Amino acid sequence: MNGFEFLELVKKRQSTRGYSPAPVEEEKLNRCLEAARLAPSACNAQPWKFIVVDQTELRHQIAQATSSRVLNMNHFTMQAPILVVVVMEKANFSSSVGQVLKDKEYPLMDIGIAAENFCLQAVAEGMGTCILGWFDEPKVKKLLNIPKNKRIPLIITLGYPSSEEIRPKRRKEITEIVSRNGY
Amino acid sequence: MNGFEFLELVKKRQSTRGYSPAPVEEEKLNRCLEAARLAPSACNAQPWKFIVVDQTELRHQIAQATSSRVLNMNHFTMQAPILVVVVMEKANFSSSVGQVLKDKEYPLMDIGIAAENFCLQAVAEGMGTCILGWFDEPKVKKLLNIPKNKRIPLIITLGYPSSEEIRPKRRKEITEIVSRNGY
Repeated sequence: MNGFEFLELVKKRQSTRGYSPAPVEEEKLNRCLEAARLAPSACNAQPWKFIVVDQTELRHQIAQATSSRVLNMNHFTMQAPILVVVVMEKANFSSSVGQVLKDKEYPLMDIGIAAENFCLQAVAEGMGTCILGWFDEPKVKKLLNIPKNKRIPLIITLGYPSSEEIRPKRRKEITEIVSRNGY
Repeated sequence: MNGFEFLELVKKRQSTRGYSPAPVEEEKLNRCLEAARLAPSACNAQPWKFIVVDQTELRHQIAQATSSRVLNMNHFTMQAPILVVVVMEKANFSSSVGQVLKDKEYPLMDIGIAAENFCLQAVAEGMGTCILGWFDEPKVKKLLNIPKNKRIPLIITLGYPSSEEIRPKRRKEITEIVSRNGY
């Protein structure tokens, strides 16, 4: 795969907010999880767990914890045949020391990296995803028996998109975000 | 590009800690930056700036700020023809509100996502990268005139690898990091 092909994949990845009822093939799901597993992390700490939720009742309950009637948000999560709940795990010793000495929460960046691998793999498999950072975290912990002291940085929806439309991306211009040899 | 091809790319991405002196073509660098620019972020805040450092003297000074004689760390950063310093910028209003209400530093995850796009694009272009989270941040800010109140989550090295060897990845087993319908 060359640079043009990968950039096409990046352009195809978008937040999919409408899903067809088609189920996700097990081997495709597994490759998405494998892409996340192989992601790099600070000091190779791999501070993550992925809970695959596909049992209908439970999935609907989690979906409810991600949507808000008041804000009219995230109702599409009900449609997605799979929700992947990403739990942040304790980093290893060297990553934790760095975190304190350099005042940086490496595991959050690590989880961003792994989530992007997951989502790009999904696009390569013909599927769509949406990364959610806003949900009722205590409720999700309770539903999945996640220890109270853990954090859930993200939930990812996964499934076949209901539409093939690729929307144009609204992004800052390259000149706004890139400079050379100085800020 | 299909799922097998993308997973191959993920397997080829590794922390490149030896660089050839070959310069990086401008159009390849630009596609790496473009892949980062198109990355998703919470509420589309795009809380990032990328400073490309390729001026030899300055590059060596930054490289020095990433390496430690005491810890015998990161001396390869001297070899890389390009260093990309990633600055965290203020998120937009909705991401900032979410950050407070949900106690989550979304911009750190966003920067992880964008960094991974950059690194995967580099691999697709035949190059190598290494993501660094440990460096003398005040020194780097001074060298690049970055305002003191900004944070620098990451520096990415970029260049052609001095060796074509793909090392096997040491990762937790899939059963250690994946569960179904519960923690």
